Amino acid sequence: MSDLGVIVKKSEDFSEWYTQVVLKSGLADYAPIKGCMIFRELSYAIWEKIQEIFNEKIKRTGHKNVYFPLFIPESFLRKEAEHFAGFVPEVAWVTIGGDTPLEERLAIRPTSETIIYATYAKWIRSWRDLPIKLNQWCSVVRWETKSTKLFLRTREFLWQEGHTAHATKEEADKEVMEILNEYKDLMENYLAIPVLVGMKTESEKFAGALYTTTLETIMPDGKALQMGTSHNLGQNFSKVFNIKFIGEDEKEHYVWQTSWGISTRVIGALVMVHGDDKGLVLPPKIAPIQAVVIPIPYKDADTSTILAKAREIREKLQKAGISTVLDDRKEYTPGWKFNDWELKGVPLRIEIGPRDVKQGQVTIARRDTFEKQVVKEEKLIDTVQQLLEVIQRNLFNKAKKFLEEMITPVKIYDEFKQVLKEKGGFIKASWCGSRECEEKIKEETSATIRLIPFEREEPFSNCIYCGKEAKEVVYFAKSY
Amino acid sequence: MSDLGVIVKKSEDFSEWYTQVVLKSGLADYAPIKGCMIFRELSYAIWEKIQEIFNEKIKRTGHKNVYFPLFIPESFLRKEAEHFAGFVPEVAWVTIGGDTPLEERLAIRPTSETIIYATYAKWIRSWRDLPIKLNQWCSVVRWETKSTKLFLRTREFLWQEGHTAHATKEEADKEVMEILNEYKDLMENYLAIPVLVGMKTESEKFAGALYTTTLETIMPDGKALQMGTSHNLGQNFSKVFNIKFIGEDEKEHYVWQTSWGISTRVIGALVMVHGDDKGLVLPPKIAPIQAVVIPIPYKDADTSTILAKAREIREKLQKAGISTVLDDRKEYTPGWKFNDWELKGVPLRIEIGPRDVKQGQVTIARRDTFEKQVVKEEKLIDTVQQLLEVIQRNLFNKAKKFLEEMITPVKIYDEFKQVLKEKGGFIKASWCGSRECEEKIKEETSATIRLIPFEREEPFSNCIYCGKEAKEVVYFAKSY
Repeated sequence: MSDLGVIVKKSEDFSEWYTQVVLKSGLADYAPIKGCMIFRELSYAIWEKIQEIFNEKIKRTGHKNVYFPLFIPESFLRKEAEHFAGFVPEVAWVTIGGDTPLEERLAIRPTSETIIYATYAKWIRSWRDLPIKLNQWCSVVRWETKSTKLFLRTREFLWQEGHTAHATKEEADKEVMEILNEYKDLMENYLAIPVLVGMKTESEKFAGALYTTTLETIMPDGKALQMGTSHNLGQNFSKVFNIKFIGEDEKEHYVWQTSWGISTRVIGALVMVHGDDKGLVLPPKIAPIQAVVIPIPYKDADTSTILAKAREIREKLQKAGISTVLDDRKEYTPGWKFNDWELKGVPLRIEIGPRDVKQGQVTIARRDTFEKQVVKEEKLIDTVQQLLEVIQRNLFNKAKKFLEEMITPVKIYDEFKQVLKEKGGFIKASWCGSRECEEKIKEETSATIRLIPFEREEPFSNCIYCGKEAKEVVYFAKSY
Repeated sequence: MSDLGVIVKKSEDFSEWYTQVVLKSGLADYAPIKGCMIFRELSYAIWEKIQEIFNEKIKRTGHKNVYFPLFIPESFLRKEAEHFAGFVPEVAWVTIGGDTPLEERLAIRPTSETIIYATYAKWIRSWRDLPIKLNQWCSVVRWETKSTKLFLRTREFLWQEGHTAHATKEEADKEVMEILNEYKDLMENYLAIPVLVGMKTESEKFAGALYTTTLETIMPDGKALQMGTSHNLGQNFSKVFNIKFIGEDEKEHYVWQTSWGISTRVIGALVMVHGDDKGLVLPPKIAPIQAVVIPIPYKDADTSTILAKAREIREKLQKAGISTVLDDRKEYTPGWKFNDWELKGVPLRIEIGPRDVKQGQVTIARRDTFEKQVVKEEKLIDTVQQLLEVIQRNLFNKAKKFLEEMITPVKIYDEFKQVLKEKGGFIKASWCGSRECEEKIKEETSATIRLIPFEREEPFSNCIYCGKEAKEVVYFAKSY
């Protein structure tokens, strides 16, 4: 399916490189519908790994998976004014069912707060019913008018959305942070993508939230990417959907709520952050296939012995819990296979030729550094396990180093504009806290405040824009 | 969440009993949108088990999971005439995106043949690209106008749909049967629901298929339920979507295709087949929770000792691979908890009281027969494992016996009508093979031919309707 490798360098034309890697590795394809994409087997298998890891995390902390309808009546969306205003420009509307025009048009969910909370109002009666901690894996639709970017901006994408209800603000605050920390662990320790965590400003928060926390990182082209968000919705939705409970104090209270989500855009981040001129590079903990065994039959050699050994090696690795495939296709040469599996980002390649069989050894090649080593068969499992850990760590450290280099503190607005233009990345600057300055900067540079870091720093200058006294240090960037 | 148990008997008002069990066990709820439902945590957890089991089966045989768009352009649906005619009355149409009317309206997928095959035409070039064996888990929408029945008939439901392309008819035939056999194994050996397998008639086959194979069973009210279907699509779709490949003979050929699916309606079957007057009864192999541990603190007894023992038992079972919860809620009595977990269908209840702790034993109660036994702690794991197997077998055998009793061979049309009216179930009859007789019977009795069994039997009378020579023996029934 991938006759040709990637024919443009990451450093030369990043955008074209990205598209080629996604298409040629078999991660995804454009759908025959404007703005939509197809999640092919490789990206879907990565998504299944993410589901497995995140499900384990949230089930451990008492969350349950459910499935709510795809359709949201317009009247529900309208109930929370900010929420409606935030989402209505991007809604796809169903207006006809069978042959009959609908009395009320139905939104294809852009997010499910309203349909879920209309139901919570029915389910919640007493403090005994709290907390409710539900999550769903589904697709959502946002009718983007900007041009499509595979994984990063499409009209339909896959995500998970968590929706919880609590008796107190403190509990909701705690939930927001617990989930943010699980996201951070997923991003850093599985996807090997370091992130900064913090708060969104008032103008950047989720439509209808009290506050939004976020995970942000920088792509190789210097643009920021939001990797996930976790919101405290306060009582904004419980008041309009009338979600009340009788407390232990026997009085009526509105519940406090949170919602949080990550989407398939993190797969786009995986490609961008770790990929190279040969294609994808997958961190071992998220790679659906961790090692590929390739027999190298020479003309004179006994092919069946090599193949038998390759099968044996594959079995051994699989038994040790290492997800391994054997590529024994006859219609392709070893060289072609090397390229193909490099393109697909498999962390380790294990080559077995006639000499290897004779000497009881194999050759192992790393995808991240292309380093090769010859290993005695009896040390195979140990070596492979170590190498997988080393690769995982190496990818994270490289990305971490890049992220750190891409944070530039500036004190002067001219420098701000220059850094943004020439280098990109996060610009760390002091800010007076006014929405006006934030908006002016956005207008003039298209950079926005990506986050107010949790680890507060003292302002190191006056406000970068107005020059008045600064309130806090924030991170600006252009973003996807 | 379930303050009251089921207050109607299965034998007295089956339909009301079903609704009460589904709602009160917390399996599902009505959505605040006409015709839609909410898959609550219990039904979704069962669906996750089904996904896990079926994924393992199909991945073993080389199928891959993917995700194609929710939207299907009207022009795609129109390409295969029978297919369009079959689905168009039930399509929900998106006509507006954001503020803009769409140029071409988009169907919410009722099934994905057309969108997937439009893409296969792009992906398939040579015999080397075959077979393609893809599957997706998603929701589909069919704008039903009949009244809703939770799990069995809703406007949106969850399913998997497999879509394969092959070089020859023989390969496609083989795929159809391979999948049908996997379905049968899932239904019988996991869901404990015995099924009959066979072919659909021309008028009952899937819209656009060459032929349809089916799994059918009988519900306690005598109506048949289709549990899954596997279709050979022949070259009907490849011809209209132009899916061609260059064969090893270097000539151009159209591919042969299959599609197959099962849906969340099988959860409805689970409820109906195994449930009793106390609520759900889940077969152990599909039960998200296999055992519940309930501490029984007596007034005078040392509660903390009992609780500590209950925790220990729970740990032990969990470690042995038995999915177990400890119900240590203080706000409910043991009696209330017994009812609650019976309602939810958990196969085994393990009670621990002060006497049990003293004597190093526990009391185990079976959900299917309500039998109780006292077991020494050292034999706990073995006993629980055996009991789970016994329950699994018992549920299947009971259902199998019922299914066999509900097959009635008849030779005379008057008897046919009488059996249908008084007993229901499958009516085994000889049929001439004409569509006319099939339709007349449907008009007059609303019974349809559910299947032509694979194990062909010689006709044992003339055609049940026209009295002419019969061609084959078929199974009629009224159905959901």
